[in-house]
Amino acid sequence: MADTLAELAAQLRVDSIRATTAAGSGHPSSSMSAADIVAVLFQKYLRFDFQNPKAPDNDRFVLSKGHACPVLYAAFKAVGAIDDAELLSLRKLGSRLEGHPNPHVLPLVDVATGSLGQGLAVGVGMALMARLDQRSFRTYVMMGDSETAEGSVWEAFDKASHYQLDNLCALIDMNRLGQSGPTELGWNDEAYVARARAFGWHALAVDGHDLGAIDRALAEAQSTKGKPTCLIFKTEKGHGYSLIANKEGWHGKPLPEDKAREAIQELGGERHLRIEVKKPEATRPAPQESAAPLKLPGYATDEKVATRKVYGDALKALGDAHPDLVALDAEVSNSTYSEELREAHPRRYFEMYIAEQNMVSSGVGMAVLGKRVFISTFAAFLSRAYDQIRMAAVSNATLHLCGSHAGCSIGEDGPSQMGLEDLAMMRAVAGSTVLYPSDANQTAALMAHLVDLPGISYLRTTRAKTPVLYSATEKFPIGGCKVLRRSDKDVATIVAAGITLHEALDAHARLQESGVSVRVIDLYSVKPVDVKTLRQAARETQGRLIVVEDHWAEGGLADAVLEAFSDEPQPLPVVKRLAVRTLPGSGKPEELLSAAGIDAEHIVQAVMALKDAPGPTDAPEAKASRPRGRKNA
Amino acid sequence: MADTLAELAAQLRVDSIRATTAAGSGHPSSSMSAADIVAVLFQKYLRFDFQNPKAPDNDRFVLSKGHACPVLYAAFKAVGAIDDAELLSLRKLGSRLEGHPNPHVLPLVDVATGSLGQGLAVGVGMALMARLDQRSFRTYVMMGDSETAEGSVWEAFDKASHYQLDNLCALIDMNRLGQSGPTELGWNDEAYVARARAFGWHALAVDGHDLGAIDRALAEAQSTKGKPTCLIFKTEKGHGYSLIANKEGWHGKPLPEDKAREAIQELGGERHLRIEVKKPEATRPAPQESAAPLKLPGYATDEKVATRKVYGDALKALGDAHPDLVALDAEVSNSTYSEELREAHPRRYFEMYIAEQNMVSSGVGMAVLGKRVFISTFAAFLSRAYDQIRMAAVSNATLHLCGSHAGCSIGEDGPSQMGLEDLAMMRAVAGSTVLYPSDANQTAALMAHLVDLPGISYLRTTRAKTPVLYSATEKFPIGGCKVLRRSDKDVATIVAAGITLHEALDAHARLQESGVSVRVIDLYSVKPVDVKTLRQAARETQGRLIVVEDHWAEGGLADAVLEAFSDEPQPLPVVKRLAVRTLPGSGKPEELLSAAGIDAEHIVQAVMALKDAPGPTDAPEAKASRPRGRKNA
Repeated sequence: MADTLAELAAQLRVDSIRATTAAGSGHPSSSMSAADIVAVLFQKYLRFDFQNPKAPDNDRFVLSKGHACPVLYAAFKAVGAIDDAELLSLRKLGSRLEGHPNPHVLPLVDVATGSLGQGLAVGVGMALMARLDQRSFRTYVMMGDSETAEGSVWEAFDKASHYQLDNLCALIDMNRLGQSGPTELGWNDEAYVARARAFGWHALAVDGHDLGAIDRALAEAQSTKGKPTCLIFKTEKGHGYSLIANKEGWHGKPLPEDKAREAIQELGGERHLRIEVKKPEATRPAPQESAAPLKLPGYATDEKVATRKVYGDALKALGDAHPDLVALDAEVSNSTYSEELREAHPRRYFEMYIAEQNMVSSGVGMAVLGKRVFISTFAAFLSRAYDQIRMAAVSNATLHLCGSHAGCSIGEDGPSQMGLEDLAMMRAVAGSTVLYPSDANQTAALMAHLVDLPGISYLRTTRAKTPVLYSATEKFPIGGCKVLRRSDKDVATIVAAGITLHEALDAHARLQESGVSVRVIDLYSVKPVDVKTLRQAARETQGRLIVVEDHWAEGGLADAVLEAFSDEPQPLPVVKRLAVRTLPGSGKPEELLSAAGIDAEHIVQAVMALKDAPGPTDAPEAKASRPRGRKNA
Repeated sequence: MADTLAELAAQLRVDSIRATTAAGSGHPSSSMSAADIVAVLFQKYLRFDFQNPKAPDNDRFVLSKGHACPVLYAAFKAVGAIDDAELLSLRKLGSRLEGHPNPHVLPLVDVATGSLGQGLAVGVGMALMARLDQRSFRTYVMMGDSETAEGSVWEAFDKASHYQLDNLCALIDMNRLGQSGPTELGWNDEAYVARARAFGWHALAVDGHDLGAIDRALAEAQSTKGKPTCLIFKTEKGHGYSLIANKEGWHGKPLPEDKAREAIQELGGERHLRIEVKKPEATRPAPQESAAPLKLPGYATDEKVATRKVYGDALKALGDAHPDLVALDAEVSNSTYSEELREAHPRRYFEMYIAEQNMVSSGVGMAVLGKRVFISTFAAFLSRAYDQIRMAAVSNATLHLCGSHAGCSIGEDGPSQMGLEDLAMMRAVAGSTVLYPSDANQTAALMAHLVDLPGISYLRTTRAKTPVLYSATEKFPIGGCKVLRRSDKDVATIVAAGITLHEALDAHARLQESGVSVRVIDLYSVKPVDVKTLRQAARETQGRLIVVEDHWAEGGLADAVLEAFSDEPQPLPVVKRLAVRTLPGSGKPEELLSAAGIDAEHIVQAVMALKDAPGPTDAPEAKASRPRGRKNA
């Protein structure tokens, strides 16, 4: 066995070199340091059915140091999951073997890695799901030493011990060298051990090139109960090829062909060893809770209800109906109202404390194992996890994010708590859906859509109680909007959502008293946006749109509205943007809405000013100077 | 003294109650737990000239648990920096005393807090500046226990010991209770001590309501050399009022008036004690390096140079000219080229390793002490610190951020490394400036602007070498753009920046060969955007704009361009957006630009398609159905 392991490890190194040299880029040295650990893990410990990578009893392996993927791809070759030709397609257009692992194209990996320091948090989510479903699989996360500088790693260390995840094992490839120079802690394995222990883990230092020691350490991890285990492997970057082993200057550099030949020779030449990974025993999963029929909450139109409260109400209702729904919150469940899920289904609520990065990545780990994952905190604090949200999309994960307390309308707490950039942030996530409901029944209906919606979605909720506008039977398709006020005489369209929709309705009423009619659109679906209705409203209201949003002027509602007027020749509206443009302070919600110029009074003023201005097609400059047709072409 | 301290501590509690009850919101219980610590610190340890809060020898005090600001404001009253009437203006519109500390209005604080877990990193930056300038001030950071769940806190712990910051002292108010329930670690002060020690700190547990013990602990911190000190104070939330002391359910709740009266009575009534804080001794600062005249790098127009390389070249040149310039990088200085500053001025380069959150907040700490701060990493990884960037703007700090390796044009490394949301993210920062240069001389010129520009700025650089387009003497005002190709016969305008500008120029050349003239605009200033030139181009090129960006379609160049056509009645162009719309993979840069539809070939196709489509004013639907003028009003 030791011979086989040594041969396998050499093969992983050789194949890491072959693949990166063929690609002309990549990270052979970071792969070579990890090869012995991967060899022992795959040959002796991992239980995985490579014919069925999503089998629920498979152990999970997360390569948090994603740049070392050549060693993982080499292991996939050794187990027969890919062939040698595919291995050599690394980093080429159309290859499943991207520069960092990507489950969009390679289902053998569960999540995308490459933004360092996120893998352990993903592993925490997976290990929590094993516990929830009473499955015996183990989760292994391989990290680089450099990435332990990321705070997200310590959030995950903290949560793993808090939840006593003895089914989780962290493997730190302590190769001493980062990208631009030595790491902070070098080969100080005592420091790593002390930190892991202080965070409640079983931890030990191991020679990462001693196959027997690796074997014993993994066995010890497996038999350690009540706490997770962290193995700190002392390794050499580039181990196996004397020219680069433990040398600076070889991060992220493929070997030139002559050096590759030399290295492969030093490593004993090419091999095409094929190993068998043991399949997991199928466990009988925990009997799933029975699913109740969905009973969405409904609200009477004479009530005032905060949309954040409805998030909690609907989350509980959806949790009743979907036994695979889980919720996470960052210690503000009494503000976001996710506490309603906790109270109804305590096993499926995960308190992630004030650690938003770990919350999102753990949610990804749960989602890729098939759970419906809802995550909530203040909208402002989701910005803490933007990299994790971005990577969740690269991971092709489905996550439902809810940000409460959005906008200056939160009032007295001041700008640090306001969430004025969340729409911009969430619109710019690959394939995301962005919703901003304005009333209770709408929020509940949208939640019912979300529970089945793939990809990253975002629901923006409001702190204040607002009037219920819609009946509980109204439909709210994603990508739609609601025309709440309309007449044949509308001189402009007000587009609003959430808190500002109520200001828009108030403005409509005041304008009506002055004999001025305006259209009012509730743009609850910010992405995708309802192109057809917006275009129609522009056509029918003299090409005048006023977009009102409790968000910075950039990246939010107005930018979303203007998307609807792109790409096809058509009449374009005059768009007046009412948005937050200077930093709000503390004050009453209505004072801050006024100070930002986004309350009913300012909307009325904007309508009156726009009404008296020339329409887009009346602009004299346009008529005078714009060339017509194609006469100059 | 002990009596005075007890009286002062009681006053801080009473005033925290008075202010929050008057406000009708706020966090008295979180203030009361910290009152004894603040009393001893302000009375005996802090050296601060309240007449001159920005004096360079003042100790710094950062209240990381910003929600406990009532106790800080109460201390400001006790030292005479504010009066009682102002204290009672807490959280009211126009008051300097916002719900969380905000230096925009209250210069007595250096930074905004309220997004938890950022204060210690700010303190690291301040302590590093004391070291750099050989000043003897100390930096105190008061944290809540809940916020130690944030990974950013451990990034700061790590950096503080790495840099042996014995002038930094962390004060943890371990009051056991978070917002929605008990903290993870409760009163387990041994766990906190073990974690701080494992991260290289001197640490001790202290009774946070024993004035003598607090005094001795602060003295021990002051005399501890070679490492920072962390004091873990065991406290009770709401201490001093038996009804709420150490009780759940009192987070963020003001006392009703009757309970406030009862509490104040229990605390011995109102007091208006006035204490003197000792002023610091003026130190003779380190002799500043002499400033060389600015010699910006220049590049010949037959060169190909990567804009990221120019960032390094210009940073070094600006560093020569400005002795108060410092740079931070997250262990990728050989990719961003900030290594050039490190090589030239090693004392002013700070390696922050792979910990972007701490990097940004430490930069804020340096900036608010008057340094010119440049921060660089991959554009993708600035998303890791979005909350910190957001808060830097709330702090009114000036930070120059540079994100390299932006867009799918980085090639083989794949989507985890691409930075496709950075423009959206940075546009939606309060008062930000967003620049995206396309050539070497432009990058250098923009860097020269940035060094004097207040607020948060962002410079997006490109991995690949690109042709030099401009002479070294060309001017590039912020808010401007460059019309690089124009004729009287232009049938459309192509707006591009960075890597896509070179594709646009290529497209222009190909179209020219087919007899089709287009305008090409280099939109290097994404925020603010050049409204006048864009409007003129639209007027003069038949109202047709094609915006091409190596960024998601949301929040980037196209959204910025459409801003220019808002708010005033005018003809709006047909805008065709060429942007990244599906997740890129690995491949050669040119392959990925093509796959995303943003290369020269796709631009040519878009021009030809648009050229043959009816112009905006020719749209038949518009003519038929749009009501004219105000006839319906």
